[in-house]
Amino acid sequence: MHLSSWIDIDPESDFSLYNLPYGIFSSASRSPRVGMAIGSFIIDLAAASKIGLFEDFEIPNEVFYRDSLNDFIELGVEKHAVVRKVVQRELAGQDSTLREYQTLLVRQQNATMHLPVRISDFTDFYSSLEHATNVGRIFRDPEEPLLPNWKHMPVAYHGKASSVVVSGTPVHRPRGQIQKSPGANPSFKETSQLDFELEMGYIIGKSNPLGQPVSVNQADSHVFGMVLLNDWSARDIQKWEYVPLGPFLGKNFSTSVSPWVVPMEALVPFRVDGPPQDPEVLPYLRSSGEQNLDINLEVALKPGQGSEEVICQSNPKDLYWNISQKIAHHTINGCNLRIGDLLGTGTISGSASTSYGSMLELTHAGAKPMVLADGGKRRFLEDFDTITMRAHGQKGNVRVGFGELSGEVLPAIELD
Amino acid sequence: MHLSSWIDIDPESDFSLYNLPYGIFSSASRSPRVGMAIGSFIIDLAAASKIGLFEDFEIPNEVFYRDSLNDFIELGVEKHAVVRKVVQRELAGQDSTLREYQTLLVRQQNATMHLPVRISDFTDFYSSLEHATNVGRIFRDPEEPLLPNWKHMPVAYHGKASSVVVSGTPVHRPRGQIQKSPGANPSFKETSQLDFELEMGYIIGKSNPLGQPVSVNQADSHVFGMVLLNDWSARDIQKWEYVPLGPFLGKNFSTSVSPWVVPMEALVPFRVDGPPQDPEVLPYLRSSGEQNLDINLEVALKPGQGSEEVICQSNPKDLYWNISQKIAHHTINGCNLRIGDLLGTGTISGSASTSYGSMLELTHAGAKPMVLADGGKRRFLEDFDTITMRAHGQKGNVRVGFGELSGEVLPAIELD
Repeated sequence: MHLSSWIDIDPESDFSLYNLPYGIFSSASRSPRVGMAIGSFIIDLAAASKIGLFEDFEIPNEVFYRDSLNDFIELGVEKHAVVRKVVQRELAGQDSTLREYQTLLVRQQNATMHLPVRISDFTDFYSSLEHATNVGRIFRDPEEPLLPNWKHMPVAYHGKASSVVVSGTPVHRPRGQIQKSPGANPSFKETSQLDFELEMGYIIGKSNPLGQPVSVNQADSHVFGMVLLNDWSARDIQKWEYVPLGPFLGKNFSTSVSPWVVPMEALVPFRVDGPPQDPEVLPYLRSSGEQNLDINLEVALKPGQGSEEVICQSNPKDLYWNISQKIAHHTINGCNLRIGDLLGTGTISGSASTSYGSMLELTHAGAKPMVLADGGKRRFLEDFDTITMRAHGQKGNVRVGFGELSGEVLPAIELD
Repeated sequence: MHLSSWIDIDPESDFSLYNLPYGIFSSASRSPRVGMAIGSFIIDLAAASKIGLFEDFEIPNEVFYRDSLNDFIELGVEKHAVVRKVVQRELAGQDSTLREYQTLLVRQQNATMHLPVRISDFTDFYSSLEHATNVGRIFRDPEEPLLPNWKHMPVAYHGKASSVVVSGTPVHRPRGQIQKSPGANPSFKETSQLDFELEMGYIIGKSNPLGQPVSVNQADSHVFGMVLLNDWSARDIQKWEYVPLGPFLGKNFSTSVSPWVVPMEALVPFRVDGPPQDPEVLPYLRSSGEQNLDINLEVALKPGQGSEEVICQSNPKDLYWNISQKIAHHTINGCNLRIGDLLGTGTISGSASTSYGSMLELTHAGAKPMVLADGGKRRFLEDFDTITMRAHGQKGNVRVGFGELSGEVLPAIELD
């Protein structure tokens, strides 16, 4: 099927008719509300609902007049499919209410994007074999980088939901305890190893009750959509604190997500098989079907005074653990996921050294500094560097993208 | 000052005039709402507000007609002090509206208690030196049980907010991956090492903006009150999964809290100095004043068919890290705490072997089973065991308690 619209959409646009991602936006005349991206526009779904676009489908207007998608998500997958279909038809068709009321379209450049989802809990996985191997080599043991549990379960930890912010939010260089060398007392200072982590995030769309696991075969139906995710990290803080209870202040100062949530339906064309898993996983983790996604990812760095350049190109298609396995594992003990939970993939690194999804890996923990086009060197991020992540799937004419996830590093805040 | 009331309050009651804790209750005729415990009664603060008890103080009725304390907490410390003072005066005085309208009082036995706070994020610390030493000895190295960072920072990790439940909620025995011996492949089964952890929890009462640390000297003003907390744990699951990212499924299947939140003001009489800290902590962690609490804690175990017996008596007064240090540390990197965040102390163990706050420690990981009064033995918890935690401070006539935190272990749920 090839879709076309009366709206002029750049063929290179992330926001094609096949995508239709959801977000929360506001503008000079509009309070925060639910919108849908198309080309360089946003469809004001609140206003569209108000004039009756969805009136045949028992979808209450109010869910669109919210500052998060949570209430809309709660309507369930059938209502989401309706909204998607109606908008798709409206955009494709000539006899279109949207076309008639073009005030329902807001230019993206005139809108402010907000955090799309009220994050209930944030869980971050560690599902790239290449990343886990690289990090294990640097932080622990070059000979045995992978821990014994890694190929048996999608290892994960809980992060802080409060510090998940939307693209565009700057990140101040955090301070913390840093140990200069083994055995030394820690000192208190700004991190000198500020890093990004290239990840994608899943938004949970259906809750499971406490005590009731979600089986690996039903896990698909518990996902609403995906975002890009930057898990900002301070490696020196992380290294000193993380044993034995895991990462804490090295991570929880900020996690950024893209403003547009791409619905799982839009990602179907990019589904592929994941890599073989050896040893065989336990039965509760045995998934079937195409569970991985072939999505082109890139990370660009722009120094404060310089121009942007791509420093990493990666793809989640080889992630060792897929989303169904992650959900099955997360809930196998009865743990309840709620609408609005954010599940990160963990850093998405490939085997090529240009595909490493963090400075830690790209520069071998600073041992091999990166040389930028302007001659500048980077072991880790410097103040006023901007990190921008982009992602899109492409299959024939069908292009579905995530827009940009961007954040600038600002100097540490003055303490009182 | 000695307070007395026209209500008959048992001198042994946890809920004296000095306490006045907040909770969320409902009854046959009342939807969930804010209440305050006094003796064996609950004051219906919603109804009390409606008839004008707080009308001179600009406190909106609506905050009491909620199914969580969050909106009430958001009013701020001055309004909380007003409510407390008005109720205290009402209960002590002869010329009392509450006395006139005794329908504002609900017997606790006729009420259902709910989770008092909508938990925003749950962070659990690890602040008992004795517990960290005991666990380090069992899980890691008997010679060097304490890790190098432990005396430099209040180590912590993030838990799952969704699975925090109120007292009375049973816990189903979780399943998960368990490694029988080093090098073996894991198998999937029910935990055979189900445990409790005796903790107290702090409810954050004032948010800090992302990027803005709370200084150790201002941290006090960010706490609303305290609860009892049982951090249910599955030790065999935990042991296999926790390296390198920390506890996950071994903990997040359930965390219980007591229904009554004791305001910090009620705990002032029990404030004591904490233990000396050596080596000296970094400046951002140097607190002053009496930051610890002298509170009698106990844990009782009741087998399904047997009678209850106390298996642990402890006290948080010797916790190595105090709450001001915990908040200063948690936010020093700019991490934002929000109203409704729950901060656990971590297991509160003393030096006496009867004061260990978990089965793991009490039975030396099962090596020295506990013999119960009915002759039964326990390495860890068995199905239909009920764990009840209690806590109270006593200073002269002044008694302030937390009520009970109770939960029964039920068999694992059948999987589809």
